[in-house]
Amino acid sequence: MARDVMASFASHDILSPSMTRLTAPEQVRVFAPGGIGNLGPGFDILGCAVTGLGDEVALAWSDEARPGEMIIADPGHPELPRDPMHHSAAIAAAAVIRASGITAPRGLVMHARKGLPLAGGQGGSAASAVAGAVAMNELLDAPLDRQALLTAALDAEATVAGRHADNVAAALLGGVVLVRALEPLDVVRLPFPPELRAVLVHPDQRLRTAEARAVLPATVDRRTLIQQSANIAGVVAALASGDLELLRRSVDDRVVEPARARLLPGFSEAKAAALAEGALGCSISGAGPTSFALAPNDDRAQAIGRAMCAAYERCGITARSRVGRIDAEGARVLKS
Amino acid sequence: MARDVMASFASHDILSPSMTRLTAPEQVRVFAPGGIGNLGPGFDILGCAVTGLGDEVALAWSDEARPGEMIIADPGHPELPRDPMHHSAAIAAAAVIRASGITAPRGLVMHARKGLPLAGGQGGSAASAVAGAVAMNELLDAPLDRQALLTAALDAEATVAGRHADNVAAALLGGVVLVRALEPLDVVRLPFPPELRAVLVHPDQRLRTAEARAVLPATVDRRTLIQQSANIAGVVAALASGDLELLRRSVDDRVVEPARARLLPGFSEAKAAALAEGALGCSISGAGPTSFALAPNDDRAQAIGRAMCAAYERCGITARSRVGRIDAEGARVLKS
Repeated sequence: MARDVMASFASHDILSPSMTRLTAPEQVRVFAPGGIGNLGPGFDILGCAVTGLGDEVALAWSDEARPGEMIIADPGHPELPRDPMHHSAAIAAAAVIRASGITAPRGLVMHARKGLPLAGGQGGSAASAVAGAVAMNELLDAPLDRQALLTAALDAEATVAGRHADNVAAALLGGVVLVRALEPLDVVRLPFPPELRAVLVHPDQRLRTAEARAVLPATVDRRTLIQQSANIAGVVAALASGDLELLRRSVDDRVVEPARARLLPGFSEAKAAALAEGALGCSISGAGPTSFALAPNDDRAQAIGRAMCAAYERCGITARSRVGRIDAEGARVLKS
Repeated sequence: MARDVMASFASHDILSPSMTRLTAPEQVRVFAPGGIGNLGPGFDILGCAVTGLGDEVALAWSDEARPGEMIIADPGHPELPRDPMHHSAAIAAAAVIRASGITAPRGLVMHARKGLPLAGGQGGSAASAVAGAVAMNELLDAPLDRQALLTAALDAEATVAGRHADNVAAALLGGVVLVRALEPLDVVRLPFPPELRAVLVHPDQRLRTAEARAVLPATVDRRTLIQQSANIAGVVAALASGDLELLRRSVDDRVVEPARARLLPGFSEAKAAALAEGALGCSISGAGPTSFALAPNDDRAQAIGRAMCAAYERCGITARSRVGRIDAEGARVLKS
């Protein structure tokens, strides 16, 4: 049911007397980190946010657009649409307005900044959706809690990249996330050892998400189910206990990686190079083409990144690596 | 390579100067707890030991049997074999001798005491194998470490109940165990909240292990794989964090329980009764017919046990319940 936005502010102030902010901002800038989706054996259910690159969304009330409408002044990338119906940040913002039940009193203008590669497997569309959702929620004076925000961002991600919440949850909440269920949405933030490092290697190749999904096996045999279940249980146990050797043994995807690796020239070589340099597991991030490795410290992580890039280069593929910590914070409002 | 048992004792004393025991005992009595196998979504990989019932093995050097041979004076149950080639405790003892490389200097006599139901799904054959292995290891002055003992007990369990280590590992190590892999054997002890209680309900029905395995689906679809993986990840996360509500949502087996439930009249009714009484999940223990429930405290556990028994009774099936804590200790030598 639509409510007047000003009435909503008033009731919110009454209900939350501890708030220091008396009115919602006129404009806001939000950053959401990228990261790893489909973390090892955790296809569709395990993801993490990684410090460093992310997407930004600046959103402002404006009379340039009509009330209830949005102008995308900058979609963040030449290949991204200016139509708010098709830009994941704008779709997420609209979902937040809808879920809040608030009638937007003015028009909106959005500027997006794309720090993450497009279709790279680093959670770019999820980060944009989360940044759009959080920004809109801020402009409305935070009517939605994190669960509702997650749902709004997931709806947006679903329209552009399929309904999986591992990247969206990581971008919003930060840390390592387990998507225990989608219906109803049940997301758990997992503990992780602070020394853990992530290496993300982006080879100069394209893998269409549709193609990446088409090669997934429709069924698995019972033995594979047991191995895969045991490995994801091992990953969760290792993250909780900080047992990095267990993590190394458990980051072992028997289902998705074998199917997708053949679509990704150089990946197998890069993985072998990562493991030779002491990686705590190596696999494909999201739907690729980015590959990731985990590492026990910065030095190892840097060496693994170099070795993986060199392996891709030997296959004739240019690749760039970056090293980050787990981003424990997730999406945040930036000071302007 | 066979070594003389006395030479082994001598070298062991030299290598372990801190030992207070100078010679191995002449006889020993070992208890190993029963528990839950196939814990919820953890088919073949997740088990726990439960306080209360277990199996005992008393083993003694004796001149009644020839050197290298064993007499089973009491197999522990009228239906269990007196032939050491077919009794899981004796098979495990033989596997320990073999793995130790020691030539048994004298004959052996075994008395078994069966506290656990036969073919009940409470890890009885595993507990007997573990008790036999630990007893033999004690008589040999502990040549095998826990990993080697686990392998010996697993070999014995494999000959009588199939190659799965969830019950064996729980009976030996105690606590909640994750079998991350069988080849090579990789078992992880998981943390668990101390308030957790287990309810084991044993209906008066028989389910042959072969039949219980025959109904297992050969394959599962990808969606089920993802759900099952997410649920076992949820169980491990919940045990580590003590989040009992997450445990409740995650003890949800989408693969094995649906297949086996129809072989077990009364189970569905007992499960519904358990959940209505606040169980943190309910499923089939091992290959059944025992059903189990988890509970947040003793009072709930007792109420759940009563409700489950009453539900079986309404189906015309007599059932007995017991409540225990997680047995954190596992197999132990008893003072005689």
